[in-house]
Amino acid sequence: MGGARAKRMPRAVREQQMMDAAVQTFGQRGYQAASMDEIAELAGVSKPLVYLYLNSKEELFVACIRRETKSLLDAVRSAVEPGLPADQQLWAGLLAFFTHTAENPDGWAVLSRQARTEPFAAEAALLRDEIVAYVATLIGAAAEETHRQTDRDPELAERDVAGLSQALVGAAESLAIWANETPGMTAWESAATLMNFAWAGLGNLMQSERWSPR
Amino acid sequence: MGGARAKRMPRAVREQQMMDAAVQTFGQRGYQAASMDEIAELAGVSKPLVYLYLNSKEELFVACIRRETKSLLDAVRSAVEPGLPADQQLWAGLLAFFTHTAENPDGWAVLSRQARTEPFAAEAALLRDEIVAYVATLIGAAAEETHRQTDRDPELAERDVAGLSQALVGAAESLAIWANETPGMTAWESAATLMNFAWAGLGNLMQSERWSPR
Repeated sequence: MGGARAKRMPRAVREQQMMDAAVQTFGQRGYQAASMDEIAELAGVSKPLVYLYLNSKEELFVACIRRETKSLLDAVRSAVEPGLPADQQLWAGLLAFFTHTAENPDGWAVLSRQARTEPFAAEAALLRDEIVAYVATLIGAAAEETHRQTDRDPELAERDVAGLSQALVGAAESLAIWANETPGMTAWESAATLMNFAWAGLGNLMQSERWSPR
Repeated sequence: MGGARAKRMPRAVREQQMMDAAVQTFGQRGYQAASMDEIAELAGVSKPLVYLYLNSKEELFVACIRRETKSLLDAVRSAVEPGLPADQQLWAGLLAFFTHTAENPDGWAVLSRQARTEPFAAEAALLRDEIVAYVATLIGAAAEETHRQTDRDPELAERDVAGLSQALVGAAESLAIWANETPGMTAWESAATLMNFAWAGLGNLMQSERWSPR
């Protein structure tokens, strides 16, 4: 891919190729072990060109975690139809999440493993907060929908919703990491497992039915 | 604490003090930024003594993640009474988990953040697998109990149980990290949030009531 043909590519396309190569390399080797030589070779460009476009290994890595977070969030957002009942929204979102992480194992490894390494942990935590905030809006909307359609008021305080979102995101992350290491585990199966784990619990909360210790 | 008095301490006590100082320093500063000087000073011993007892910063850190994992697992195991109904076992286990992580924020930071950093990720993953395996035995036992006491057979395959355990552990980790960063969030509140999220879901599964997409 090098040489004259590569030179005619627009910058955006070239950058995209470098980023693809970087995500693959970081995801499979880890941040420390990944080399810029390897990334340049995989992208079919020279190492100076990678530095020219993306400055440093650190900046390239940060660009990767930003791109992969956006790509994951876009996949989930576009699958969730706001008009559907809450359980169908959750199901669609979970299925999109596990499909995306299964189809992009390198990107998911970058987000779920590599990005938690210093000095990127703070940036990765901010990006993860976006995902948690999105899930919180879905849970909040589901609670409001229940309130409108029934006499029940879930009375989910802001902190309840924040805690539930953390729990759901943590469960999904853990399951996706495990699923990608488990041969034969499909995205559908992962989504169904988490749906069964989570929905009836959340569903009962929406109906104001709380569990309490005796 | 240095000098003649410290010299009379048995090795086990001295090591314990060094480990306490190490967990505090690693938990608050992170692995990279923590220095052996700081750890020695906090433990009230000389730096050569820390090296003599615990060899290297790497080995000291691995010893910390092993000790903190064992301490967390012991806290949860000793709270869960096998004879109790499944929901009471889960509640007791969650309450012990969130109490332990709230009371040992440095140890929890070491396990949940620092230990995921290379080159410790593999060791930390093995220790986490012990926690997941313990949770899987609880879920498996709950399913068997249901089968004995009712006509229902949850028919939870080994892979279902493994996936549910991953989901529950991931949810608990995520919530505990967030709870320790959220002023005023109590262990009881965290445990109640996760119990409400998880129990009715798991509880329905035990009753063979699965959610399925329409």
